[in-house]
Amino acid sequence: MLLLHRAVVLRLQQACRLKSIPSRIYIQACSTNDSFRPQYPSLTFSGDNSSTRGWKVMGTLLGLGAVLAYQDHRCRAAQESTRIYTKEEVSSHTSPETGIWVTLGSEVFDVTEFVDLHPGGPSKLMLAAGGPLEPFWALYAVHNQSHVRELLAQYKIGELNPEDKVAPTVETSDPYADDPVRHPALKVNSQRPFNAEPPPELLTENYITPNPIFFTRNHLPVPNLDPDTYRLHIEGAPGGQSLSLSLDDLHNFPKYEITVTLQCAGNRRSEMTQVKEVKGLEWRTGAISTARWAGARLCDVLAQAGHQLCETEAHVCFEGLDSDPTGTAYGASIPLARAMDPEAEVLLAYEMNGQPLPRDHGFPVRVVVPGVVGARHVKWLGRVSVQPEESYSHWQRRDYKGFSPSVDWDTVDFDSAPSIQELPVQSAITEPRDGETVESGEVTIKGYAWSGGGRAVIRVDVSLDGGLTWQVAKLDGEEQRPRKAWAWRLWQLQAPVPAGQKELNIVCKAVDDGYNVQPDTVAPIWNLRGVLSNAWHRVHVFVAP
Amino acid sequence: MLLLHRAVVLRLQQACRLKSIPSRIYIQACSTNDSFRPQYPSLTFSGDNSSTRGWKVMGTLLGLGAVLAYQDHRCRAAQESTRIYTKEEVSSHTSPETGIWVTLGSEVFDVTEFVDLHPGGPSKLMLAAGGPLEPFWALYAVHNQSHVRELLAQYKIGELNPEDKVAPTVETSDPYADDPVRHPALKVNSQRPFNAEPPPELLTENYITPNPIFFTRNHLPVPNLDPDTYRLHIEGAPGGQSLSLSLDDLHNFPKYEITVTLQCAGNRRSEMTQVKEVKGLEWRTGAISTARWAGARLCDVLAQAGHQLCETEAHVCFEGLDSDPTGTAYGASIPLARAMDPEAEVLLAYEMNGQPLPRDHGFPVRVVVPGVVGARHVKWLGRVSVQPEESYSHWQRRDYKGFSPSVDWDTVDFDSAPSIQELPVQSAITEPRDGETVESGEVTIKGYAWSGGGRAVIRVDVSLDGGLTWQVAKLDGEEQRPRKAWAWRLWQLQAPVPAGQKELNIVCKAVDDGYNVQPDTVAPIWNLRGVLSNAWHRVHVFVAP
Repeated sequence: MLLLHRAVVLRLQQACRLKSIPSRIYIQACSTNDSFRPQYPSLTFSGDNSSTRGWKVMGTLLGLGAVLAYQDHRCRAAQESTRIYTKEEVSSHTSPETGIWVTLGSEVFDVTEFVDLHPGGPSKLMLAAGGPLEPFWALYAVHNQSHVRELLAQYKIGELNPEDKVAPTVETSDPYADDPVRHPALKVNSQRPFNAEPPPELLTENYITPNPIFFTRNHLPVPNLDPDTYRLHIEGAPGGQSLSLSLDDLHNFPKYEITVTLQCAGNRRSEMTQVKEVKGLEWRTGAISTARWAGARLCDVLAQAGHQLCETEAHVCFEGLDSDPTGTAYGASIPLARAMDPEAEVLLAYEMNGQPLPRDHGFPVRVVVPGVVGARHVKWLGRVSVQPEESYSHWQRRDYKGFSPSVDWDTVDFDSAPSIQELPVQSAITEPRDGETVESGEVTIKGYAWSGGGRAVIRVDVSLDGGLTWQVAKLDGEEQRPRKAWAWRLWQLQAPVPAGQKELNIVCKAVDDGYNVQPDTVAPIWNLRGVLSNAWHRVHVFVAP
Repeated sequence: MLLLHRAVVLRLQQACRLKSIPSRIYIQACSTNDSFRPQYPSLTFSGDNSSTRGWKVMGTLLGLGAVLAYQDHRCRAAQESTRIYTKEEVSSHTSPETGIWVTLGSEVFDVTEFVDLHPGGPSKLMLAAGGPLEPFWALYAVHNQSHVRELLAQYKIGELNPEDKVAPTVETSDPYADDPVRHPALKVNSQRPFNAEPPPELLTENYITPNPIFFTRNHLPVPNLDPDTYRLHIEGAPGGQSLSLSLDDLHNFPKYEITVTLQCAGNRRSEMTQVKEVKGLEWRTGAISTARWAGARLCDVLAQAGHQLCETEAHVCFEGLDSDPTGTAYGASIPLARAMDPEAEVLLAYEMNGQPLPRDHGFPVRVVVPGVVGARHVKWLGRVSVQPEESYSHWQRRDYKGFSPSVDWDTVDFDSAPSIQELPVQSAITEPRDGETVESGEVTIKGYAWSGGGRAVIRVDVSLDGGLTWQVAKLDGEEQRPRKAWAWRLWQLQAPVPAGQKELNIVCKAVDDGYNVQPDTVAPIWNLRGVLSNAWHRVHVFVAP
């Protein structure tokens, strides 16, 4: 009986993998003034009809699978539904050895036997092991159906202790004490300041990254700003007038909405560390995400303060309202030419995916500089000025620059390199994961690709043999506008696994419309800060016998 | 005595190598309506004072060297000065075995013994072996001094036969019969149509490439156009007016002058051929050159014909006045957005390095599209129109596109790839040459680096050990304007040769201000047309014991 169930579910898994992902899912659960609050998501699909149909088919199949597969759990579930567990007990059940437990509302479920049957793959369910399902269900519309809840009910083993509420232990001396609550799926690289990335298998699940798992790169504690008293100071041009803009004032400028991918300069730094130690957070492939940003155009706001493009080089300097104990704020700058170019579409954004910015992403206002390194997209924006020179901020002048592999901390001259603005072409594999075992027969490879400066990704080549031979992946995601391809392309390739192959060295490399390519290897682009890590991405997997 | 001479000359050679090259030498010998006519060059230096002083010092030293070194040739020269030789005889003396002969005016010289003493290096003098010196002296200002002529006089062996005039054998049926005469230093990849590149050691001798050795990429016979009757047809916008512009009309638009590097998409194709056969001319590293171009801005001319930037994608199509036997003209297009952007500085150029365009470079008018592949810089421009689609020319739609290494002539779908516009970052080593033997002690490595789209070259890394360790080269050439770095940087590195090293694997790679880098190897960017060959450039040399 179980064998039959497994065969049905495997076919279901295949069906799910072969269909295309809906191109946009807006998750309205992303709330304003605080990050993730577990609740049932209210979902809006704006994909094309075929995708919506795809999900319906999948839902139906999933319902069928549920009925067939899990009948045998009813008995045990009924017997154990009255037991009471603490959150701590639940959180200790995160492996096949201890059992894999999850919660939904006040109910506790033992899903150990279901993990391998999870239609979305075991690894995605494992992200929730030992804790609540809500944050994950909020990301996956498919769960919001009655048959999924029926399926889960088979695995109920008890209830959460109603008195089990963790008292918040706020240390008032801790500048990070007031940081928002984050989504449990995020892989944390640093708690203070908070730096975290979504796991690869969630990253490319949606073209638009849901707000709760958008990668977070903070340099300082998150300020807690009152939208009613918030003011943005724009220093006026000589002869012009300085502005002190409320949120309402900003809303009065024409509103623009664009899809933009943000990438940290340190994305994929962990691969550089494998060559030689570098200074910086150990980002894997997830320091990149995509959102719909809306706000006023920087060029409109600057024009109102009397600024215009000038022949001499000038820079627009941004200052955040986040600051260190000495009162030094985060800062960065971009060239005035980019800021004043309407085609460059630089925004003072107050919305992210249709919602006010989450606190971790700059509430109430951040800069969005399409095609440019994340470090210039200053969050919690407090002040904008036009200067003859770049921002004097540490992060503009003594960080976020690239150097030759020969330069070390004894010889580095930060003034000798330009600050990173546009980023080079990038791509990475998100599925399968390094070290994973894939089925023989056919392998599905997924990933993302993006380039800086509005250059569109025109091709992704994938190799199964370490780069000897290549196949062209299928590009998904929104159509790119010429010279304004601000957002990534997701891609996938279904390829036959060569017969008799015991392992695969999967490699991807992207090409942008300037026909820029990624370098083959990491060592020759190694640099002491571990930025600009865009060599071919390589994943080694085993093939199931 | 000869030993003393050699020591003096070697010191002279060193002195020359260590000094910087004057940044601009305009050679006014480059004439309008025909390419190179041997004559003494009239030279204008516009480098800084220190460079000019550098040349004067060199000249003086050279004079001294001449007096010291070549006294012993006087006798023999006096004895042999009356002998008469045919051009054919001279042209058969091009090697140490046969003797190395050159001519200047009507005089014949045997410079076999001087070749190794040539202050500019033996390889440069060898370019003139068997023929006239004039075309080369026109490129090298330093020869235009009396003591150089005195030096040469020592080697005179006779006179050219005054009756030895080669009758031109024009075949009227040959469409290429009227092509201009070219500079003998050019390395010819194809005579009909004419395609040729300067040898590497001449290419980076000057920041501005002298017109006679600027690489030439013709697709068809060179038209012979009368500047007085020439008309450029600009198709008017709907509601606008078509224009028929004479050269004088074009001169009436505001004149802009910019330094722009042109590169053929096939530059360095010969390295791809080494991986696997490709279709195309075997360009080495010389299908790239730099000139000062002057003309009217395309945006001004289009505006006068009623064109303006529109929201929908459109293209500016160019048609040349060169055509094949069926009457099909060369054609290409660029996006209207680039054409109309004053910052993109697209020119309808009528001057090249202060002279009317040479015939091989589009006389009387060509397009210059800064930062974009050479194929779009349409020469002998006859017609400009704005279309909703790209040019239907073969060269826009069925050529000059990049593909995955997996694509062959059976599977290629030209519609699947965008036409090449901006080119990726590029660099190459011009000195030393592959297979050369360099002195132990110190090696000087020279080359060029350039990137498309106005992206400035910010760094060139050079390796002597095949890419294991790197040193940063010194960048020469003009300061680059932000976002408008249309011209190359020349670079050089003086590096100690590691003791005991018998050979060096010299490698260079450049980085542009979008931090794009060159790929490590050729095979993964191989494509069936052999375009976009921008892997690290590698040169293998031997070290003299």
